[in-house]
Amino acid sequence: MKSFEAIQQEIIDAVETEMVRFISEQVTEEQLQESMRYSIEAGGKRLRPLLLCLTASAFKNPLEQGTIQVAAALEMIHTYSLIHDDLPAMDNDDLRRGKPTNHKVFGEGLAILAGDGLLTLAFQLVSQASIDADKKITLLQLLSQAAGSSGMVAGQVADILGEGQQLSLEELIAIHQRKTGELIRFAVLAGGILTNQSASTLADLEAFAMHLGLAFQIRDDILDVISSTEELGKATQKDASLEKNTYPALLGLDGAKEAFAHEMAQAQQRLAMLEQVNCDVVLLSMVFQWFALEGKGVK
Amino acid sequence: MKSFEAIQQEIIDAVETEMVRFISEQVTEEQLQESMRYSIEAGGKRLRPLLLCLTASAFKNPLEQGTIQVAAALEMIHTYSLIHDDLPAMDNDDLRRGKPTNHKVFGEGLAILAGDGLLTLAFQLVSQASIDADKKITLLQLLSQAAGSSGMVAGQVADILGEGQQLSLEELIAIHQRKTGELIRFAVLAGGILTNQSASTLADLEAFAMHLGLAFQIRDDILDVISSTEELGKATQKDASLEKNTYPALLGLDGAKEAFAHEMAQAQQRLAMLEQVNCDVVLLSMVFQWFALEGKGVK
Repeated sequence: MKSFEAIQQEIIDAVETEMVRFISEQVTEEQLQESMRYSIEAGGKRLRPLLLCLTASAFKNPLEQGTIQVAAALEMIHTYSLIHDDLPAMDNDDLRRGKPTNHKVFGEGLAILAGDGLLTLAFQLVSQASIDADKKITLLQLLSQAAGSSGMVAGQVADILGEGQQLSLEELIAIHQRKTGELIRFAVLAGGILTNQSASTLADLEAFAMHLGLAFQIRDDILDVISSTEELGKATQKDASLEKNTYPALLGLDGAKEAFAHEMAQAQQRLAMLEQVNCDVVLLSMVFQWFALEGKGVK
Repeated sequence: MKSFEAIQQEIIDAVETEMVRFISEQVTEEQLQESMRYSIEAGGKRLRPLLLCLTASAFKNPLEQGTIQVAAALEMIHTYSLIHDDLPAMDNDDLRRGKPTNHKVFGEGLAILAGDGLLTLAFQLVSQASIDADKKITLLQLLSQAAGSSGMVAGQVADILGEGQQLSLEELIAIHQRKTGELIRFAVLAGGILTNQSASTLADLEAFAMHLGLAFQIRDDILDVISSTEELGKATQKDASLEKNTYPALLGLDGAKEAFAHEMAQAQQRLAMLEQVNCDVVLLSMVFQWFALEGKGVK
């Protein structure tokens, strides 16, 4: 039997291959392709495509090309959002994953267009994916909602507008549920949709993903406080200097760690519900553990 | 019988209503909605949705809600591209249709996100539109290709990279075919697809649209030379000051006018082919004439 690490690596390899294949095939303008590939190939944990594919795998389906394609599209959308977030008009970051940000290398104009290109290409990839027409439409509806102006984009706006203001915990949660939670929710839901799960299983998966998504954001805030620039590969303690609202700023470091543990426990509870259905809960627990470990380490 | 102007106004009203309805319904973040609506409601000739709906109408179909929705999505994509093009990192325009550009009113960060939001919302609208699943997927594939990094975004990149360089006529055409031509091609093709036209009719429509698209760009370049800021509602002679490649710069004003006439004649020829099918060629000719008149006037 394959190790969990081997399964993860297989997924990452397949998703990265698909992203590069599709970009190389579709993008004929040389510098645009270079700029798009620069950010796509900058690495990262590939958390969202992994969640999507591992969820699909937990329902005992061999990993199909259509699933890889949807996962690749999701990572393209995540990558576009990072390129735009790093722009001087937004977070103004010079470093991402230890490398200069896209606009530092290619200029702001090309970085904006590379982001626009990746977002559009993601929808093209799903619309051309090897999956049934009905699933395709459902996924396109969910993905555009999750990524758009009632999801990730709205969260980013709320985040920018909240800078320099003291937010309540509820307001902070509302920002993160949209800014990072919606794509994580899509990842897990898509894994269920692609493997034909029932409405009740999809509801369990959705609740699981929402807690996991919040945990992820709290973990990110905590890492920002406790890590050095060198370890994390991006400028840290930036959030504090920009007077950003973070969990540690609002709850203290210990309070933030407690909130992280709370969300993880809630996610675990929802996971237990899935033992009723034909689901490899051991695999999903591993996904969960892996997520929890990510929360302790700095990668 | 309704006048051509009345038909146009009906389409514009329906498309504008649908855009505002969908944005109001979907975008809960107040300032984001305001920024998106600011550019959507700034007016403009609504050329692309008109082309789409008039083409569909020419095939003797009553205008259906699904067609209006696809047309509204297309105009959202056009509007997002204007918001991003106007940014300081791109064309750096302060005025658009006689009003301050989006980033001048809402700041660069929100303008970038409003553009991202409109692009994503367009795909959401098509994915939820009242049309058959198969047509929906075909249209989503074509729209993402036309708008993306092998279409409009690629054209924009080539345009930026070509600044300050002397391009050949072929290079200039290649830029415009992608930068503006692809969305116009989509508009006309979608009108045919939504009304179930044959592959051969779609091929005629596509060729018609390509000539029309080039004519549109040449006309835009000519207007930039002959109009004053006041008449056009945006800064003119900007192209020359940025050392942009334009038809008048490359061919002279008379040469550009000849090129415009040539493309219009080619479009007319393709139009004649459609007389074989169950198509209201009179209406399509009116679309064509209207387009040609737009080429002479300044609106």
